[in-house]
Amino acid sequence: MNIPVVGRVLGFILLFVGLFMALPALFAWFYGGDDINAILISAGLTAGAGGLMALVFRPKDELRVRDSFAVVALGWILASAFGALPFHISGALSSFTDAFFESMSGFTTTGATILTRIEDLPHGLLFWRSLTHWLGGMGIIILSLAILPMIGVGGTQLYKVEMPGPMPDKLAPRVRETAKTLWGVYALLSAVETALLLAGGLNLHEALCQTFGTMATGGFSTRTASIAGFHSVFVEAVVIVFMLLAGTNFTLHFYSLRGKPSSYWKSEEFRFYLGIVAVFSALLAVNNVLAGAYKAGEAVRHSVFQAVSITTTTGFTTADFGGWPPAGQLILLFLMFIGGCAGSTGGSIKVLRVVIILKQGLVELKKLLHPRAVIPVRIDGKSVPPGVVINILGFLFLYLGLLVLSTLAMTLMGLDLVTAFSAVTASIGNIGPGLGGVGPAEHYGHIPLAGKWLLSFCMLAGRLEIYTVLVLLTRDFWK
Amino acid sequence: MNIPVVGRVLGFILLFVGLFMALPALFAWFYGGDDINAILISAGLTAGAGGLMALVFRPKDELRVRDSFAVVALGWILASAFGALPFHISGALSSFTDAFFESMSGFTTTGATILTRIEDLPHGLLFWRSLTHWLGGMGIIILSLAILPMIGVGGTQLYKVEMPGPMPDKLAPRVRETAKTLWGVYALLSAVETALLLAGGLNLHEALCQTFGTMATGGFSTRTASIAGFHSVFVEAVVIVFMLLAGTNFTLHFYSLRGKPSSYWKSEEFRFYLGIVAVFSALLAVNNVLAGAYKAGEAVRHSVFQAVSITTTTGFTTADFGGWPPAGQLILLFLMFIGGCAGSTGGSIKVLRVVIILKQGLVELKKLLHPRAVIPVRIDGKSVPPGVVINILGFLFLYLGLLVLSTLAMTLMGLDLVTAFSAVTASIGNIGPGLGGVGPAEHYGHIPLAGKWLLSFCMLAGRLEIYTVLVLLTRDFWK
Repeated sequence: MNIPVVGRVLGFILLFVGLFMALPALFAWFYGGDDINAILISAGLTAGAGGLMALVFRPKDELRVRDSFAVVALGWILASAFGALPFHISGALSSFTDAFFESMSGFTTTGATILTRIEDLPHGLLFWRSLTHWLGGMGIIILSLAILPMIGVGGTQLYKVEMPGPMPDKLAPRVRETAKTLWGVYALLSAVETALLLAGGLNLHEALCQTFGTMATGGFSTRTASIAGFHSVFVEAVVIVFMLLAGTNFTLHFYSLRGKPSSYWKSEEFRFYLGIVAVFSALLAVNNVLAGAYKAGEAVRHSVFQAVSITTTTGFTTADFGGWPPAGQLILLFLMFIGGCAGSTGGSIKVLRVVIILKQGLVELKKLLHPRAVIPVRIDGKSVPPGVVINILGFLFLYLGLLVLSTLAMTLMGLDLVTAFSAVTASIGNIGPGLGGVGPAEHYGHIPLAGKWLLSFCMLAGRLEIYTVLVLLTRDFWK
Repeated sequence: MNIPVVGRVLGFILLFVGLFMALPALFAWFYGGDDINAILISAGLTAGAGGLMALVFRPKDELRVRDSFAVVALGWILASAFGALPFHISGALSSFTDAFFESMSGFTTTGATILTRIEDLPHGLLFWRSLTHWLGGMGIIILSLAILPMIGVGGTQLYKVEMPGPMPDKLAPRVRETAKTLWGVYALLSAVETALLLAGGLNLHEALCQTFGTMATGGFSTRTASIAGFHSVFVEAVVIVFMLLAGTNFTLHFYSLRGKPSSYWKSEEFRFYLGIVAVFSALLAVNNVLAGAYKAGEAVRHSVFQAVSITTTTGFTTADFGGWPPAGQLILLFLMFIGGCAGSTGGSIKVLRVVIILKQGLVELKKLLHPRAVIPVRIDGKSVPPGVVINILGFLFLYLGLLVLSTLAMTLMGLDLVTAFSAVTASIGNIGPGLGGVGPAEHYGHIPLAGKWLLSFCMLAGRLEIYTVLVLLTRDFWK
């Protein structure tokens, strides 16, 4: 690892985080909250630490492949650690573990919360909590790439490491242009959603916070009852549509904005994604009606909302699905493993990987009948190289391995099977609410201390798609 | 599908099953049970049906690749259906669904039972129940291959389809020799275990039945309390050792008997298999002691027994692990997904596949740091072709897919999450006892009718490693 290079890039990232951290002070000032000092002190500390690092480290070399993993993983850890300061310094979350958990849950767009009553948090802190979602959603490093010209050659590698999905597309020949385009589309969609929510009767603070939670597929709300707290079918409909847009590959939005809206329908991944949401929404609705949980209209409303919210890994809720019949809970648990499209802000395994694995399964069946045939897996008419298929196998194995080991550790801390498994699933998949003791009507406050740190690690590993975090733990990396 | 060829081979398989079915009549006669008539009638019907098919179908062609899938899948279904007759005709299991479930559970070496009190079954039926394990363990089709010279060219293909594991080894240039060798080793080990159990104080009936359950990694016992019912540390030790041997690749036993006992230690899969058993036995023991479930000695005894029993997919029990602390239950649930070695009588995913996936995961981490390097996965010094790795990916996906969909169907029938998930896991993995409502102190009698058929399908799909069963459901197969 080249410490001067890594240190300088990390310094710039922290400087950014610090500048963004000052924004919530506006809301704290407007609402006259006593959180303004904690916010400004934290922002100063963060920007100060970042600026100092950028001044001290004066690298002569450029960023190499192996340094990029360190930059991305450490960048996210530092951002979360400094991001915890406003919660901690204000005294809102007196335990630093809780503050770090909430901050990591924000940046990784998980949306799992320690808080029992969200409304107890002052407006400035609430805004910062939601802003961490928005910064993490499209990626803090991609944001830095868009703004900073100085990262240079290593930028493409950084982009590949932070961007979710097995085959990251570059939209432009230069990575800086790609990063700018992605953040531009992201900001544009966010602005439209905010406008619609304002039209739906939310104030600016509420509209921005729900937008950040939606577009980042995060799930932090400003209400304890989540989106149900707004009692508005219009708001729920807006959130459903924008969760779906946030879970879509942003490349498709870009092409659509450039006048090719047919790009959506031409994408197999997108069709499969909508198909999954439609099929499982219907299954949930039928199951809820048959079980007598809701009348038909209510069943459709809640089932579609939860299917979209969980598939996109947002985690907003309009109903306590922890009380749904077992089959409904299982469907939601299953959807937690699919996640958004590659190149979206959604987490978990990603639809593209699921489609490739599914097609590979069918190819293997065909090969049994035609043993000598060479049948490639095709996505959008292009054949997927065997190396990518094998890479997905490795990813899946590490994902499930981390899931099993972490669940085991959580049960050793005394949690029951359903709570342990669903808490880990919801953390690695960056979803938020799980089942049992961490269901939608519950929170993560009662998880033991060590469990909170483990779940924070799972959130980070999930957001950075496992490899980036695990590679830092290999001996080979440090040689 | 070439009906005359398939019909003739199936006829011979049924003829065999019918002849073996007559054997339990000896025990029925010896113990003076009234089950002797039902057994003889069933044997006559089965052998008669088989003989008739072998006479009627006079094929001109040889078995082709695609026919072999039909022979194996239909052979197992027919064997289970006719194997259910003794239970049904005797009136011991008045519902044919129950009789079929018990028979399929026997042939697939699952060991899940409908029975509440095993001791209520007469000795002849008990012997047949255990004998289905022994016939299914090394494979009824491989047994036919060993005895029948007439199957000819298609034999190699049949062998590949029935033999578990991603890369079936042929021990001899001719498949008939390989089949004879495997069954020879299997019979030899069974004879040794029977002798030891007789020395341990069991009578011949008990000794043979427990041996069939052990060597086939089946798990049907002659006692409701399973192996705990014999109250003997010696018997438990013998069963542990032979479960481990049964879960080992039989190729290694063959080489060992030929004077190369070092073959065991040279096999990476075998080392990994013993390592898993050792590590998880220790974890279980520590967890049980810390939770105060047992004193140290008892904890080691039960933990080792259950770790071996579940890893090898046998399913014998000496303790009600359904009452163990959550972490212990989770460890056993995890072990259900590993299974025996390739080429053993154990079921589930198989150690070899797990090792290959694990190594592929490490290779992918290395590739991140050295993007242009070509790093093959090596097993025992030989590199694994990418096609095999991808095949395992497809297998794993279908395995998990079947697991999820079946669990969903079981919850729709009203079962709770833990019971539904563990019943399906224990069926696909051919283990037997699960957790919750199908835990070791429970049985499968209370599962709804449709659930029993679904679980029977899962057992078959698991024993034939998914592909063989699913390929019959593709349109391509019937073209």
